[in-house]
Amino acid sequence: MSDRLVEFQREVRAFTEVRDWQQFHTPKNLAMALAGEVGELLAEFQWLTPDESVRVMSDPDAGARVAAEIGDVVIYLTRLADVLGVDLVEVARAKLADSDKRYPVEGSRGSAQKAPASVRGEVV
Amino acid sequence: MSDRLVEFQREVRAFTEVRDWQQFHTPKNLAMALAGEVGELLAEFQWLTPDESVRVMSDPDAGARVAAEIGDVVIYLTRLADVLGVDLVEVARAKLADSDKRYPVEGSRGSAQKAPASVRGEVV
Amino acid sequence: MSDRLVEFQREVRAFTEVRDWQQFHTPKNLAMALAGEVGELLAEFQWLTPDESVRVMSDPDAGARVAAEIGDVVIYLTRLADVLGVDLVEVARAKLADSDKRYPVEGSRGSAQKAPASVRGEVV
Amino acid sequence: MSDRLVEFQREVRAFTEVRDWQQFHTPKNLAMALAGEVGELLAEFQWLTPDESVRVMSDPDAGARVAAEIGDVVIYLTRLADVLGVDLVEVARAKLADSDKRYPVEGSRGSAQKAPASVRGEVV
Repeated sequence: MSDRLVEFQREVRAFTEVRDWQQFHTPKNLAMALAGEVGELLAEFQWLTPDESVRVMSDPDAGARVAAEIGDVVIYLTRLADVLGVDLVEVARAKLADSDKRYPVEGSRGSAQKAPASVRGEVV
Repeated sequence: MSDRLVEFQREVRAFTEVRDWQQFHTPKNLAMALAGEVGELLAEFQWLTPDESVRVMSDPDAGARVAAEIGDVVIYLTRLADVLGVDLVEVARAKLADSDKRYPVEGSRGSAQKAPASVRGEVV
Repeated sequence: MSDRLVEFQREVRAFTEVRDWQQFHTPKNLAMALAGEVGELLAEFQWLTPDESVRVMSDPDAGARVAAEIGDVVIYLTRLADVLGVDLVEVARAKLADSDKRYPVEGSRGSAQKAPASVRGEVV
Repeated sequence: MSDRLVEFQREVRAFTEVRDWQQFHTPKNLAMALAGEVGELLAEFQWLTPDESVRVMSDPDAGARVAAEIGDVVIYLTRLADVLGVDLVEVARAKLADSDKRYPVEGSRGSAQKAPASVRGEVV
């Protein structure tokens, strides 16, 4: 199985172990670190209009910052999954199958997420 | 290239397009959705001690909730990367290489992240 | 001193103590709870256009949800300040004075926050 | 009514208007900025043990950073409340009254929040 994400997960583990940082990497702490990085990612988008956000990668500076923040998010998410023993693609696929049932194509088309009543992170 | 994450990304895209939801999926909105899901993940850990968080997956209910929240995080992160044209593993690998230089093994071992001065999301 | 926020802080403390919940209210845990509530607040806005977000309080359902989420944010923020011994208005005023120097009116007018280079949460 | 928070809210409004920044301060953008600042606050606590977090204000450097991050959170929260026309203490008091009913003292004492089943940001 040549799975790049799983390979990368091993690299992050090695990076952590050689520095003896496993002691800090409880799921609780890693969830906080993940949230901190997502906060930095949000900060890149907070004053942009939706349209500007679509073009953000074409600005070299902003694009590089967004890529770096996403990189941090992936690192901590990967590490969290590792200490929890969770397969990221597997849990995501299970959740998507779930959403597929909860949001039948008929009735969801073009509007479901828009309704204020449906904004609680339940779109997908 | 049999990359499970990229394959999954295509599934999320198809899920989105068949519902005509691309119109809502600007990078700005997706970054918010990602942050909202990470907030729900945090909530699973907020009252747990670090030790309890280590064992969270052995509680069937809590474990299922954590897996589901991580699934949501992966879905939105994947979708965000798709609309930005960013390869998740590539940007993460670049960031890890960066951290490898900034945190040389000598001098980082067992303590670097612990210092209050180093807590700004810069551990890895 | 008739300060409504400080009075409210005392009410939250009493609410906590009568339930013997102080044991869970470490600054670390409360910061997580605060972030979790802010995530729920974000979720209320994630699919709205900027214009729709301006009118959100005129929708009775969405408005009630936004008010409730903000209420949760205030509760945990107040509680966090209480356990840390921090005066919320005082630290905010110090930060605003700081920003007043960092963002002189001349040179900041109408554009400072907009620049992608300035989006790192440093607007005010 | 000498309400320090409301007074401060007016100062933030003046700070914003003199820089002509109201145009960026939609509720959507301010919710993002608030979340970004909470992310920075989280980062201050992420590698601390619960006990270390209790003592964080006694470290001059870490204490100053925590105070500054809380200041940022208050600034954006105040500003968000202003543009929404929401009274922060009022909505928080309503929410606390709510929680008082949902978590009767008997039956909640010392344990309610602890249960993994109750961790979804519903403690207070």
